Amino acid sequence: MTNTETQRRDGPLAGVRVVDLTHMLAGPYSTWLLGALGADVIKIERPGRGDFTRVIAPFSDDESIYFMSVNRNKRSLTLNLKEEKGKEIFRRIVATSDVLVENNRAGTMDRLGLGYGDLKPVNPKLVYASISGFGQDGPYRHRPCFDVVAQAMSGMMSITGEPGGQPARVGASIGDIGSSLFATIGILSALQKRAATGEGSFIDVAMLDCQLALMENAIARYLNAGDVPRALGSRHPLIAPFQSFPTADKPIAVCVDTNEQWERLVGAMGLQHLLADPRFLTGSLRNAHHAELEPLLIPVFAGRSRDEWLERLEAADVPSSPINSVADALVDPQVVHRGMVVEVPPNSGKRFAAVPIHMQGAPLAAEAPAPRLGEHTDAILAELGFAAADIEALRSAAVV
Amino acid sequence: MTNTETQRRDGPLAGVRVVDLTHMLAGPYSTWLLGALGADVIKIERPGRGDFTRVIAPFSDDESIYFMSVNRNKRSLTLNLKEEKGKEIFRRIVATSDVLVENNRAGTMDRLGLGYGDLKPVNPKLVYASISGFGQDGPYRHRPCFDVVAQAMSGMMSITGEPGGQPARVGASIGDIGSSLFATIGILSALQKRAATGEGSFIDVAMLDCQLALMENAIARYLNAGDVPRALGSRHPLIAPFQSFPTADKPIAVCVDTNEQWERLVGAMGLQHLLADPRFLTGSLRNAHHAELEPLLIPVFAGRSRDEWLERLEAADVPSSPINSVADALVDPQVVHRGMVVEVPPNSGKRFAAVPIHMQGAPLAAEAPAPRLGEHTDAILAELGFAAADIEALRSAAVV
Repeated sequence: MTNTETQRRDGPLAGVRVVDLTHMLAGPYSTWLLGALGADVIKIERPGRGDFTRVIAPFSDDESIYFMSVNRNKRSLTLNLKEEKGKEIFRRIVATSDVLVENNRAGTMDRLGLGYGDLKPVNPKLVYASISGFGQDGPYRHRPCFDVVAQAMSGMMSITGEPGGQPARVGASIGDIGSSLFATIGILSALQKRAATGEGSFIDVAMLDCQLALMENAIARYLNAGDVPRALGSRHPLIAPFQSFPTADKPIAVCVDTNEQWERLVGAMGLQHLLADPRFLTGSLRNAHHAELEPLLIPVFAGRSRDEWLERLEAADVPSSPINSVADALVDPQVVHRGMVVEVPPNSGKRFAAVPIHMQGAPLAAEAPAPRLGEHTDAILAELGFAAADIEALRSAAVV
Repeated sequence: MTNTETQRRDGPLAGVRVVDLTHMLAGPYSTWLLGALGADVIKIERPGRGDFTRVIAPFSDDESIYFMSVNRNKRSLTLNLKEEKGKEIFRRIVATSDVLVENNRAGTMDRLGLGYGDLKPVNPKLVYASISGFGQDGPYRHRPCFDVVAQAMSGMMSITGEPGGQPARVGASIGDIGSSLFATIGILSALQKRAATGEGSFIDVAMLDCQLALMENAIARYLNAGDVPRALGSRHPLIAPFQSFPTADKPIAVCVDTNEQWERLVGAMGLQHLLADPRFLTGSLRNAHHAELEPLLIPVFAGRSRDEWLERLEAADVPSSPINSVADALVDPQVVHRGMVVEVPPNSGKRFAAVPIHMQGAPLAAEAPAPRLGEHTDAILAELGFAAADIEALRSAAVV
């Protein structure tokens, strides 16, 4: 199955066309979602080379797993944007599209003559979204950025890891994906505005900015209460107990927020006498005294196995969880029930994390596999009106 | 300044009305964004108590910093949804609204008679979004969930922290905020579909599902290549060098992805002889041999200060960064230039992380401060046509 047949896709964004000039992760994750939600996404790649992630190991059937995961639901067109003929074809696609997404370094699109100012006359209704490390302006605008740079510069690493230990990178690429999600929100908002006013927009989203937005609580605390937030292991900075604890075998995560939950927790633990302890009367007091509270809980948790505690805490309606590995998580009955693993295409054995948005009234289409480099070049050029001989000539001239 | 005057807000979502039945973080972060993008957000709170986070310390001028950060750009209406009169007022607001967002436990809204099935007849165009820990179906649908439970159950903690150490919680509440962002994308997609078809939708987003979607790379690797992903400290699982290194004083983060960047890095480090080393010829080889590569880089990094390396690596166009604290990050020249700290209201001294979406052609309104409990009750009831005496009677009856 190629994506060609699914070009008119179901889903809430059916009928929206996206020109996708993204590579690596921050951009492709955004256009993966737009495609999953029903948009027709045309991924434009450099002839012969394509997205750099196509060569990142490990591979499955010769295709990069990294690339396959975030380039589902797209069609691939190779196009040389340094050639005038390539730019001309590009502008024809832009003229019939709703959205353009790119995550080149700031200034690159302008140098190609394909910046927002260049393309707005081609399509005044275009929503043009630029995702970059640091944004389209400011002293770092021309600097390169990858995930761990955004995590490091923003302070995200400084609040992740063991107290007093090395700052840890968030294990998922939140430096990239944070910007993907905010850019997608910007794009969809701009489409909403366009539906009301008929006007397009330019959207500028920076990986660094998005990390700060994710850290809103740490930032608000620092700016308005003064403490510099730091890494706390598994512990929440404001709520206690809200962390992992060892048990007789494997650790569990336990969260108590309201006083009602606190009562249920101490009931389940046989520690009802703590209810009268003035140090633990409210959530804020429990957090202020967490260093005195933890030594009272730890020996009790150590007295039973994790699974005994999970059963007991579930019965007491206290939020709790095992600390799962990725392998554990994917066989969890709830994860299985929710269909969070999807095989694309069906019966291929290739499995990925699914779209985490369930919609009634606008169900999503089945996901389509990531394209081979240039897989849809002929089909897309034919849609634009090129005859087979024209396409062959473009290919000979290395334009496509 | 109250929000009342800014009820018709600028921004791409101007004219969109949101009924906000959210509390804690996963829901409020989504409606914070919708409000920042221009929607009129009516936050409905329980009379006398309100959102539980109003009592979470620390406080500024008697208001919870936690609450203030994620409840900007909203109006607060107190309403007792267990009283028939409260439900009636609620349905009148729903009839004039575009979106409803709630993050109660699955089943709660149905028990109140305010589920999607109940409200669709009141407003067939309504986009009704439910954010929950585990989703609206499946064996865990009725379980409570907080951030660290979603991080623990999904495997996110298992891939964050030091190799062989304790699983670490991501220092920002990505368990909550991940779901906020996907729900916002679902809502905006549903509005796009409604503009095309006139039909509303029901959206079901689970915190657990969203963690898995953020972990797409770890999941795709495990399912298609077999290795169970684990915590790697600051290191990327597939790319090397892409991590932090000690220097003569403070650590830096350095990322090298393409061979061009690798050439520039070894040039800046005086290690050009590594270019011919067969273990390091490609990104995948460098990653496969990272344990042999690191000992070659570490002594060189140790020979100069962090700031010397940052200057040298910037000159070589190699992505790099200090490992900033939150305090460092907020005085970084790029962060300052981008306006990522916003004072709300102006000249109040109260400062927060700003919206990380810059839009040309649809600029955002200035942000409005989080409301006091019930601050806009009278104004909203007056908009619904209630006279002052009616409002007083509702207040006496503890309906509002």
